[in-house]
Amino acid sequence: MEPMNNETFDPGLTQMFGGTVRRFIDKDGSFNVHRKDRLLQNLHVFQYLIGLSWPSFVGFVILSYLLVNAVFALLYLIAGIEHLQGAQAGTLGEAFLSAFFFSVQTLTTVGYGSIVPTGVETNLLASLEAMTGVMGFAFGAGLLYGRFSRPSARLLFSEKVLIAPYQDGLSLQFRIANQRTNAITDLEAKVLLMTVETFSGGQHRRKYDTLTLERPAVYFLPLTWTVVHPIDEASPFHGKTPEELAALQAELLILVKGFDDTFSQMVHVRYSYRYDEILWGAKFKPAFHIDGRGDLILDLDKISDLESVPLREGSRNP
Amino acid sequence: MEPMNNETFDPGLTQMFGGTVRRFIDKDGSFNVHRKDRLLQNLHVFQYLIGLSWPSFVGFVILSYLLVNAVFALLYLIAGIEHLQGAQAGTLGEAFLSAFFFSVQTLTTVGYGSIVPTGVETNLLASLEAMTGVMGFAFGAGLLYGRFSRPSARLLFSEKVLIAPYQDGLSLQFRIANQRTNAITDLEAKVLLMTVETFSGGQHRRKYDTLTLERPAVYFLPLTWTVVHPIDEASPFHGKTPEELAALQAELLILVKGFDDTFSQMVHVRYSYRYDEILWGAKFKPAFHIDGRGDLILDLDKISDLESVPLREGSRNP
Amino acid sequence: MEPMNNETFDPGLTQMFGGTVRRFIDKDGSFNVHRKDRLLQNLHVFQYLIGLSWPSFVGFVILSYLLVNAVFALLYLIAGIEHLQGAQAGTLGEAFLSAFFFSVQTLTTVGYGSIVPTGVETNLLASLEAMTGVMGFAFGAGLLYGRFSRPSARLLFSEKVLIAPYQDGLSLQFRIANQRTNAITDLEAKVLLMTVETFSGGQHRRKYDTLTLERPAVYFLPLTWTVVHPIDEASPFHGKTPEELAALQAELLILVKGFDDTFSQMVHVRYSYRYDEILWGAKFKPAFHIDGRGDLILDLDKISDLESVPLREGSRNP
Amino acid sequence: MEPMNNETFDPGLTQMFGGTVRRFIDKDGSFNVHRKDRLLQNLHVFQYLIGLSWPSFVGFVILSYLLVNAVFALLYLIAGIEHLQGAQAGTLGEAFLSAFFFSVQTLTTVGYGSIVPTGVETNLLASLEAMTGVMGFAFGAGLLYGRFSRPSARLLFSEKVLIAPYQDGLSLQFRIANQRTNAITDLEAKVLLMTVETFSGGQHRRKYDTLTLERPAVYFLPLTWTVVHPIDEASPFHGKTPEELAALQAELLILVKGFDDTFSQMVHVRYSYRYDEILWGAKFKPAFHIDGRGDLILDLDKISDLESVPLREGSRNP
Repeated sequence: MEPMNNETFDPGLTQMFGGTVRRFIDKDGSFNVHRKDRLLQNLHVFQYLIGLSWPSFVGFVILSYLLVNAVFALLYLIAGIEHLQGAQAGTLGEAFLSAFFFSVQTLTTVGYGSIVPTGVETNLLASLEAMTGVMGFAFGAGLLYGRFSRPSARLLFSEKVLIAPYQDGLSLQFRIANQRTNAITDLEAKVLLMTVETFSGGQHRRKYDTLTLERPAVYFLPLTWTVVHPIDEASPFHGKTPEELAALQAELLILVKGFDDTFSQMVHVRYSYRYDEILWGAKFKPAFHIDGRGDLILDLDKISDLESVPLREGSRNP
Repeated sequence: MEPMNNETFDPGLTQMFGGTVRRFIDKDGSFNVHRKDRLLQNLHVFQYLIGLSWPSFVGFVILSYLLVNAVFALLYLIAGIEHLQGAQAGTLGEAFLSAFFFSVQTLTTVGYGSIVPTGVETNLLASLEAMTGVMGFAFGAGLLYGRFSRPSARLLFSEKVLIAPYQDGLSLQFRIANQRTNAITDLEAKVLLMTVETFSGGQHRRKYDTLTLERPAVYFLPLTWTVVHPIDEASPFHGKTPEELAALQAELLILVKGFDDTFSQMVHVRYSYRYDEILWGAKFKPAFHIDGRGDLILDLDKISDLESVPLREGSRNP
Repeated sequence: MEPMNNETFDPGLTQMFGGTVRRFIDKDGSFNVHRKDRLLQNLHVFQYLIGLSWPSFVGFVILSYLLVNAVFALLYLIAGIEHLQGAQAGTLGEAFLSAFFFSVQTLTTVGYGSIVPTGVETNLLASLEAMTGVMGFAFGAGLLYGRFSRPSARLLFSEKVLIAPYQDGLSLQFRIANQRTNAITDLEAKVLLMTVETFSGGQHRRKYDTLTLERPAVYFLPLTWTVVHPIDEASPFHGKTPEELAALQAELLILVKGFDDTFSQMVHVRYSYRYDEILWGAKFKPAFHIDGRGDLILDLDKISDLESVPLREGSRNP
Repeated sequence: MEPMNNETFDPGLTQMFGGTVRRFIDKDGSFNVHRKDRLLQNLHVFQYLIGLSWPSFVGFVILSYLLVNAVFALLYLIAGIEHLQGAQAGTLGEAFLSAFFFSVQTLTTVGYGSIVPTGVETNLLASLEAMTGVMGFAFGAGLLYGRFSRPSARLLFSEKVLIAPYQDGLSLQFRIANQRTNAITDLEAKVLLMTVETFSGGQHRRKYDTLTLERPAVYFLPLTWTVVHPIDEASPFHGKTPEELAALQAELLILVKGFDDTFSQMVHVRYSYRYDEILWGAKFKPAFHIDGRGDLILDLDKISDLESVPLREGSRNP
């Protein structure tokens, strides 16, 4: 079984590997892939800081601020506390605190003038610190803008994928809505089914099937979009039982692209459902209504609302 | 009537809902959809502030500024007004004002030095406030840039959609121009007709038809662009009277995409005309002329200028 | 002659207008269209300031700075010069100057403290000015970034369009190079010929022909790109003399798109050649060579270098 | 041999030039093209500063800071050191240092107030310097943001291109991985082979062939992507020996495009392999494994790991 030899479809996740993967795409859209980073150069500070959660980011800013001021306070002490005119220097602790507060006043350029540098060394240190402060906060401004202006489409996905009646047979469907208030237009969805074939001898091979969708693209998403895959004879779901899907470690990989009007950017959202998130015999209830004034009201709480529907015997295992 | 069962075109606005919608796309291009937001997390502060009108935004900035300074003034009072050297503290009001102005001088990093902090607590508060100020204004810089750099294509649409003679029959046409001076290139227009079918029993179903356009794309828009839909036999307007369009709650949904040269961004503009904004028997008059020097002069005031033209009997109800 | 009636190609420049247009696209790529702007709201401050030339922009910044400081100086005088402690107030001129310099120290947040505000009104004014300053400079930061980060592809076009021998006939060619050092990739060129047909009665009609190009797209542009239109029997240049092109007011409209690697943006460049910029019987000489180390050396000065080539009699008027 | 005369494929690198080029694309993706820039206007300061390495950039910032302060210090000396109240002016050196530190305090807007300007000229200079400082640091903020927000896809390429067995014949393959932790989606690869034909008389002509790829695009790249070119009868590698490729100065030009999720930008990566980086008879070993918890572990160190495989006699020179 030669990897080169195969011409089946692969979305870039490779096909050959032993063992059982927990899940491929996590619920936040990231890949369940960890890396041994070999080089420090692979760390990209800005991207790292942009990707931090807000609490971590605020913590990082405060710690950096304290650290930089502490370092400069020490440097001022080394240059001589007597060159900080106006500083209190009764004890070493007092001297450090004075130097620290002078450092704050310099780094932030607040410069009250209650403590002022004298002498060449201390003045040079203060010159360096003022420049550091200004550039550091320029860095912070860029960082904040970078954090905020990241495309931030958040799509809300229904909790479950449903197997519902469809025409004379069945269909697989899930529902999405825009969690934010910005307009997303020109949406496209791709849905892949990943399964694992196990060969005699315990070898595994990933298989990727693109599911055909009733409507793979919509122009806008002000309400909800029910993405429907009809389970016809060409579908890899055709005739499969829940137990068979579990044995195949089935995982639906979902890719939604769209254009975010607020930031004028393309946004890509990834999501996945595992075999144990498929519900047989249910359909979605509407998540919106029209009020008395003729306005449409969308209720995001109802995105996963569903009702049972019987699946005909024949349609399940044709 | 099973929603799954239908394969008609839907641009993402769903088809099944009872009741009469006032209009689907408002004149500013937003969807007439309101949301019950269930989670505070759906609020995206930055997007919200970027989307505010200018008066609201300026109000927000000033109120935040006053609030932050008032809070810090209170904290300085709690830490003890005697630790603000130079502050006037005759009455509580005076003390608060002094603390407030000291707070301003710290937050903005203006730091005159007429009032200076003493003592560890007050100095720590001032250190925190100076950092808050610097980061807050970094945030403000990002916000202002975000507000200004949003793609800002503003297209001017003619007030009415016209039904005009076209070859041997009729056509529907509206006219657009670029309201701004930046160059927009590679424009594409899509026009959908939304109508409501009413079934026996009072059930409604939205129907969406894409109108074929004589020229669905242009390279640039320095002057005006008359978008023309020939009403041939395949057109959903074929043989319709104004009264029939009103009964169908007809609404034209218009999508124009283009590339904004100034910010190097794609821009998307939405617009809509309702059945009562269609004018029968008129055509547009030119909105530009050539002056004596051979330069083209565009007059945006004339974008809706029209003149009556008779519609032949036969062409209206063929 | 009904404008609706025609189905000829129009890139968005409209076809019907009397009079002679000087030229349609100016040498800087802007359209020769002037607008009567009817509404002040059409002015978009940020776009305007981003589009200003550098001298105008610097002038604008300095004038704004002087103006804002002068206004605040007047306000401080109105509030009472005696509330600016440390100000010199011998004469009104001295008082104004002191107030002006205090204003500068507040607006820029430099706040030496040699002049300090006293009293509630003056302190409030200073609070307002410090906020104004900080927000104003935040605006300036965004503006500067906006000016600098605009896609800045500058393509250098050869001075003339050449009519050169090509296989058994003729071709029209011009040459472009990247004037900047950033990499531009995935370039596409479109070339339109605009001519004016004159009808009996003096009516004019613009005609737009897309010229087929030997190679309408290239992957990169590290050297030069000679864009070639073979003048075959389908070409609108086929059999035309220079005099005929002048009579038709021929203008070549050129659109080049590409991807700018430095700013990760699409860039669009427009250019035009008029009939009097076409040179018959010449071809370009190479604008680069390989040096002794095997490196390629491009000389932008040679972009328009050409040499005469005879055009066969038969090929000119076949 | 007329350049116009040929219709072979050219990706924009031109075909006609004598001499031997060291290599066309350098290992950092830049083109091996140097330019004689004729005009100072071709220098785009912002792009230049954004492209500088970090050490050079920091050096540039510090030098500019020193230079600006030195220039203003001189101006203050010319205006008269006696107008800097609080400055030490025992010797000229002391006066310059005082003026320099006052300049720092003004440029960074730290403004302690230990030295304050008096007199109109010195106050005007200080006003100018404060404005310069604020705008300069606004410039710096934009610059830092520009440096950081550049799309920064770094793809790791395998050290060598391999000639490996493939079905009944051979294939050429190289492997790439994402060096950064940001998600890259919708990747596309193009591979060109550049060879030099030498004609009698020593003339050269570049030839560009697009290599067909087994899988020219993938949706994502969380692990590795082995790009495979099957060497079938249509391949320019068909029947070529290593010696023949060296004689042809063969160079593989590789273009990879993708969408960077973190910055929501298209990224373009260029790379090249020369004939002496092709390894005959080897295939790649997997660079990742699944750990005990079912997570995938990618090891970038193994990107170039390979093992020898014999090439059948017949497959090499069919």
